[in-house]
Amino acid sequence: MRLHGVAHRTPVLSSRLLDSLTGAKVFLKAECFQRAGAFKFRGAYNALSQETSKKIVAASSGNHAQAVALAAHLLGIDAKVIMPSDAPSPKKAATLGYGATIVEFDRHQDDREALQARIADAEGRAVIHAYDDFRVMAGQGTAAMELIEETGELDVLLVPVSGGGLISGCATIAKELLPDLKVVGVEPAEANDTQRSLASGVRETIAMPSTIADGLMVRTPGTLTFPIVQQLVDEILTVSDGDILLAMRFLLERQKVLVEPSGAVGLAALFRHHHQFQGRRTGIVLTGGNVDMEVIHRAISIGTGSETFLS
Amino acid sequence: MRLHGVAHRTPVLSSRLLDSLTGAKVFLKAECFQRAGAFKFRGAYNALSQETSKKIVAASSGNHAQAVALAAHLLGIDAKVIMPSDAPSPKKAATLGYGATIVEFDRHQDDREALQARIADAEGRAVIHAYDDFRVMAGQGTAAMELIEETGELDVLLVPVSGGGLISGCATIAKELLPDLKVVGVEPAEANDTQRSLASGVRETIAMPSTIADGLMVRTPGTLTFPIVQQLVDEILTVSDGDILLAMRFLLERQKVLVEPSGAVGLAALFRHHHQFQGRRTGIVLTGGNVDMEVIHRAISIGTGSETFLS
Repeated sequence: MRLHGVAHRTPVLSSRLLDSLTGAKVFLKAECFQRAGAFKFRGAYNALSQETSKKIVAASSGNHAQAVALAAHLLGIDAKVIMPSDAPSPKKAATLGYGATIVEFDRHQDDREALQARIADAEGRAVIHAYDDFRVMAGQGTAAMELIEETGELDVLLVPVSGGGLISGCATIAKELLPDLKVVGVEPAEANDTQRSLASGVRETIAMPSTIADGLMVRTPGTLTFPIVQQLVDEILTVSDGDILLAMRFLLERQKVLVEPSGAVGLAALFRHHHQFQGRRTGIVLTGGNVDMEVIHRAISIGTGSETFLS
Repeated sequence: MRLHGVAHRTPVLSSRLLDSLTGAKVFLKAECFQRAGAFKFRGAYNALSQETSKKIVAASSGNHAQAVALAAHLLGIDAKVIMPSDAPSPKKAATLGYGATIVEFDRHQDDREALQARIADAEGRAVIHAYDDFRVMAGQGTAAMELIEETGELDVLLVPVSGGGLISGCATIAKELLPDLKVVGVEPAEANDTQRSLASGVRETIAMPSTIADGLMVRTPGTLTFPIVQQLVDEILTVSDGDILLAMRFLLERQKVLVEPSGAVGLAALFRHHHQFQGRRTGIVLTGGNVDMEVIHRAISIGTGSETFLS
């Protein structure tokens, strides 16, 4: 395993309070404690460690950027990262801190893929895609593998969905280990491109979504990930920004863990759709913890009291 | 071991960022993930599980209250807890939630010990002291034992000091395992009763301190704990409220862990006195994570940027 001794084996948290609130038996895979603060390091390192080029380019709203920057630093690879100008400032600072160069673009106007292709061509850089790369998917899947190694039998696994790299990798390994496991993706209601695409059977493209989950703002599923999602993902649930903030608050106040909005959608879905999870052993990937302090302010200003966490 | 399978074996966190910032090799024992949110559960359960009375009384500014309430609940013991009226509301709510009865008193006017003795006598309750009880000290010491089981050799162990129960228990077991280990206590500068007492050789009583570290506001060391502290604790370092908030912010923003002010003094001392810890394998007990949301607001509003964490 390429990641052994390089990626952290993150803890699996459980909570009697969470179990009693929801009626499920919940296991939280805390990837907020992963290197560079998110699961993305798994895929980035797994891809870069198999890369023959010593110069790469990647595009990311944040966590893939940091992950690629750190993995490249560890492997002595020169990294250029294309980030939206409105990406959270800690993510930009960390990416620079690991020694990568940042190229900013306008999320609402510029064509990120075209920009990336241009840089790759002009500078002879290999593209490390955030999700449409089987090496990346395989790396992300180790999060589910480690989770199941600790929990044993699980009934359902809740995984945030953006481009589909994490859920593709997780569903592949998880259904290998536990064929009866139900894999459920979670998207913000505003960013439900995968839910729509599964319904129609083709990759749908939505308008640029507006959601607090800045890591889940893709407009269409990946070309390589979508067929895997079609085959292995059982259902997509959606959550609102309010659901996400409430889940963040629960994780902070009760579990003492800081999770970013995109990382909290799995728990938000459990709270929102808790009737579906009664009595079920439920794994949830908390994907990362890189969050602007302003968002913490919002999360700790919302609601209060355990009775309000459920919908 | 009475606590096996009852108390959580909490994770030991490390951070390359923290190591490179401070020049030390740091291991954080994350008791914020302990049951009831703090190390206090260890001592409370260890004491209550040896208690013959089925009715007890305890006095606490918060974490001992919750711990006693939970331990009593698990053991079928009737618990009455004396809490200051200005104790953090989550701590009061949790204490009630575990089924204990709360008696409030005024921290600045009432004599807590006399009130406790009165209730104990009138109602035939055994007193479970927060620190002046060898069963409690032994229970708290299991935090250091677990830490050293994971880290092996350590040069120094930083432990918050209030009444002295945690540091007595930790120093006893830690010096048994590692005779050359230096045990360093940490107090808020305003609440340095133990530092003063060690200097004078007798238990000094200070005015009621004012500090954000609400769990460390005792006025004098314990009668049973102080002789142990005198014998086994090498030094006391002090920190300011600003130091504490900065350490809380670091733990939240960089480590993704919520630690309460009293629980962050160890890291605050490392930042404040970092020259003493260069190249040393340093264990720090992060004692708990029970904190009012308002205090999180204060922590995330203070300073910014890694260069500001060191003094």
